[in-house]
Amino acid sequence: MTKQVALILSGCGVFDGSEIYETTLTLLRLDQLGIAYECFAPDVAQHHVINHGTGDEMEETRNVLVESARLARGKVRPLEELSADDFDALILPGGFGAAKNLCDFAVKGEDLELVAGLQEAVQPFHAAGKPIGVMCIAPVMVPKLLGEGISVTIGNDASVSGAISAQGGLHKSCEVTDIVVDAANRVVTTPAYLLAERISEAAQGIFKLVERIDSWIEDDKARAAEQD
Amino acid sequence: MTKQVALILSGCGVFDGSEIYETTLTLLRLDQLGIAYECFAPDVAQHHVINHGTGDEMEETRNVLVESARLARGKVRPLEELSADDFDALILPGGFGAAKNLCDFAVKGEDLELVAGLQEAVQPFHAAGKPIGVMCIAPVMVPKLLGEGISVTIGNDASVSGAISAQGGLHKSCEVTDIVVDAANRVVTTPAYLLAERISEAAQGIFKLVERIDSWIEDDKARAAEQD
Repeated sequence: MTKQVALILSGCGVFDGSEIYETTLTLLRLDQLGIAYECFAPDVAQHHVINHGTGDEMEETRNVLVESARLARGKVRPLEELSADDFDALILPGGFGAAKNLCDFAVKGEDLELVAGLQEAVQPFHAAGKPIGVMCIAPVMVPKLLGEGISVTIGNDASVSGAISAQGGLHKSCEVTDIVVDAANRVVTTPAYLLAERISEAAQGIFKLVERIDSWIEDDKARAAEQD
Repeated sequence: MTKQVALILSGCGVFDGSEIYETTLTLLRLDQLGIAYECFAPDVAQHHVINHGTGDEMEETRNVLVESARLARGKVRPLEELSADDFDALILPGGFGAAKNLCDFAVKGEDLELVAGLQEAVQPFHAAGKPIGVMCIAPVMVPKLLGEGISVTIGNDASVSGAISAQGGLHKSCEVTDIVVDAANRVVTTPAYLLAERISEAAQGIFKLVERIDSWIEDDKARAAEQD
């Protein structure tokens, strides 16, 4: 049976949504490995809209689900339709949308709250022991989302890693081309564009993350086959 | 000296801008090959804005240069600043923005007109014999942009290939994973998402296109070194 991975997106564009290259490189590696995927996003207004040329806030509103559809070539479903039963693993790409639309870390720091429906969508993956990949700034949500004591990386930024520690998470420094694996919790993270200066650097870490997910799914399928 | 490639973008999203995966995969392969790149886009209003989830037109306006900046992680320059003297080659990714914002093929078919400044930006590359890569729907512009008698592909769509022929272009059918090379004119094209059903298929053709461009630049650098 085909392996199935779900992604949760947060818009389309590094400064107010999902990081475009991180998401695309994730989909590329999944597809190269023969893993099917589906994208999901919350049907809420973006925290704000950033002119990516100037960095200025624009006086308009955009919807996270609608903009995520750009990044998914039209194929994105509302977050509340995500059921862990239908997938072998979950991946959350980064981009500041993760810290602005999926939670309010960008405003509240370590006191962040998760967007409605996110914990309900993600927790069942963790409870079932299914692999979860998280990249870039998105690991700041891991303590609230999955619980304390899980090892993650956001690269080497002291204030962000401090916010993870303050929430009860464990932070490990990591190169852009590498991953941090919490085998017991089946969580894999990579710094991606929190550190990447070149797309090929980000790709190396992201490809390793996807390959780690693939390998865990293989293990699960093998174990399930033995039990049949 | 580092190889330098320019890209011309047309927004951010397959239905009203540049195809996101085509652009990202192009940048990935360029960077993997050690080729530097810069992105350019016209500073004009998009033809329209499409809700990529529903396919419906949205009642708002967006600017091609501003939206292209999302796809370029902020680093995009106005088309009029593009000088062929600064680059070894040029690549135009696809997406319907190429047929709606860079020209009006989506409205006028074979009687298309190019957006102001596009021909002035592109023609000097061709006149200098510099390699040009064009993908997806964008090759419909090649006859008007570069002149008649140049072999290109848009895959195998009869009406689009007919429009290329009607303008004096030559169309060759091509698989999604392959490229069409006009060696005399140094133009390379690939169908990308006019045919791709999977991102890994699009990647194969796009990677071949970038590698062909790289190889031509190598030839040019070797020839220039001999003449020194």
